[in-house]
Amino acid sequence: MIRVALDVMGGDKAPEEIKAGALMFAEEIKSYKKSVHLVLIGTEDAISDLKNHKLADYFTLKIVKDYLPMDIKPTEALRRKESSMYVGAQMLKERQVDAFVSAGNTGALLACATLVVGRIEGIDRPALAVPIPSLNGFTVLIDGGANAEVRPDYLIQFAAMGVEYARILGKNSPKVGLLNVGTEENKGTDMHKLAYQILKEKLGPMFHGNVEGNDINLGTVDVVVTDGFTGNVAMKTMEGVAKLISQTIKDEAKKSIDGIIGALIFSRVLKKLKEKLDPRTYGGTFFLGVDGIVVKAHGNSDRVAIKNALKVATQGVEKQLIKNLEAQLARWK
Amino acid sequence: MIRVALDVMGGDKAPEEIKAGALMFAEEIKSYKKSVHLVLIGTEDAISDLKNHKLADYFTLKIVKDYLPMDIKPTEALRRKESSMYVGAQMLKERQVDAFVSAGNTGALLACATLVVGRIEGIDRPALAVPIPSLNGFTVLIDGGANAEVRPDYLIQFAAMGVEYARILGKNSPKVGLLNVGTEENKGTDMHKLAYQILKEKLGPMFHGNVEGNDINLGTVDVVVTDGFTGNVAMKTMEGVAKLISQTIKDEAKKSIDGIIGALIFSRVLKKLKEKLDPRTYGGTFFLGVDGIVVKAHGNSDRVAIKNALKVATQGVEKQLIKNLEAQLARWK
Repeated sequence: MIRVALDVMGGDKAPEEIKAGALMFAEEIKSYKKSVHLVLIGTEDAISDLKNHKLADYFTLKIVKDYLPMDIKPTEALRRKESSMYVGAQMLKERQVDAFVSAGNTGALLACATLVVGRIEGIDRPALAVPIPSLNGFTVLIDGGANAEVRPDYLIQFAAMGVEYARILGKNSPKVGLLNVGTEENKGTDMHKLAYQILKEKLGPMFHGNVEGNDINLGTVDVVVTDGFTGNVAMKTMEGVAKLISQTIKDEAKKSIDGIIGALIFSRVLKKLKEKLDPRTYGGTFFLGVDGIVVKAHGNSDRVAIKNALKVATQGVEKQLIKNLEAQLARWK
Repeated sequence: MIRVALDVMGGDKAPEEIKAGALMFAEEIKSYKKSVHLVLIGTEDAISDLKNHKLADYFTLKIVKDYLPMDIKPTEALRRKESSMYVGAQMLKERQVDAFVSAGNTGALLACATLVVGRIEGIDRPALAVPIPSLNGFTVLIDGGANAEVRPDYLIQFAAMGVEYARILGKNSPKVGLLNVGTEENKGTDMHKLAYQILKEKLGPMFHGNVEGNDINLGTVDVVVTDGFTGNVAMKTMEGVAKLISQTIKDEAKKSIDGIIGALIFSRVLKKLKEKLDPRTYGGTFFLGVDGIVVKAHGNSDRVAIKNALKVATQGVEKQLIKNLEAQLARWK
């Protein structure tokens, strides 16, 4: 039985959409007879109404006294040990659960994951690893937003984790690129120039060199390594473009009869496109480098995103993500 | 008569595509009887075949002895005073031309623009200002790639230039956002936290606060201020998404008869979409803060992009960009 804890109090739409997502996932557990059990962590006010829910066999309620606001500082998060987020991390640390999902503040979750759950040996800073749709299937972007500032040696660790994650997701011999403002060796800040040299030395032929923003979706490489600030901006920018495009298609289609008819006939293609670009389809992303499965759901998550984040967490447990990562990292030494 | 100089030797596809773009623009000058004259700067080998071209009335050739490779370092660029790029900047400085366009190395062009042409008073670092398509028409992204590293006071100058540029492009009371990894005040690096406070103090109600990557295309604000590293990655990422989307539409449409028919009927909408997302439609972007009109065309520019970059430069002269910017900056003090 896989046990997945969910922070019901984290996220812009908490607790209602988070609860709704948990119930959607509970429905799936029931329908597909999955061997999964949820632990929903929240305040009495927020979750006690679920006590007698018809799906209550598929989850356990964990009542806590406190929860963290979305603008909490990481240091403050570590002091509030009765919050839903801290308690979830603590349960994972004590192996009461196999995975923990939260849509709460990224920095706070990173702090709880790193300092409560702990890190894998050889990793200084856990990072968000995000599979991004690309012309080559997907590209793992790491770091997607955990560490706003990085040092070149962190980037090496990100590369190692990204490569192993890409392998777990099905890429046989992943290539790594360093996100930069040009492909030439001397591009970017001093940090990038140094990182380039170290990546080249450590990765050998696995290192493709510098890549640019467009290479993420083009799938030029399998793993794109970057600091969490740039990675977060790139990911959010993709969301914005997707929104602009879907809105432009809608607006233009309405303007003429051929547009309206075309949109109808073309609807299957447009639906596929939407699915491919919908950030909710992956729902949650792993904090790689933590000694336990921690999934960060988008702060803006609705019920569908939460359901998908719970699915991602379950898959991480099924695929023995941590064990595989540890084994591979040991080989990198 | 507006005189626009073009660096025929700069760009991944130089000199052939650059020449072809110049000829496309010369054709437009002829057709629309525009009061514009081009100065094409290149080596004898590269441009002497244009001497007896049928459109030769619309341009003058300026033969130089040297040109800069795409991976040149800015310091090196400043030493090579006989290069097409340096000569173009020099001609602008001496007011032999009214504008200068190059698709060459960004750092080299920035160095030539800043140190040969000179800066507007009150501006430490010129920046690339790029109008990005958004749900609200367009959003000016500044810096789009000139300065990989910035200080908070540069960001204030970028904001001032971005606001005036947005005004010139038709926005009445532009709002400014600081690109960050969350909307809360305490997000980002120490540099961002400090920049937030200074922008808030200097801009007052004109400052919207922090914005995220998706806000660029959503048009949440009119001006998005950022360092050139993040700005460049965001812009290039947009290109990648657009490419992924157009490819996905193509591939999915081919899979079924309704897709094929739908694509035909829907072609007008798809064409509109493509135009909106094509980076070649704006073609070139201004280095704002330089005391003269310098337009940077994409390194990968083809003839269409070059033609559009020449158009952008011409419009800058027509709209008296520099004079307007100077007048407004004086008021900001």
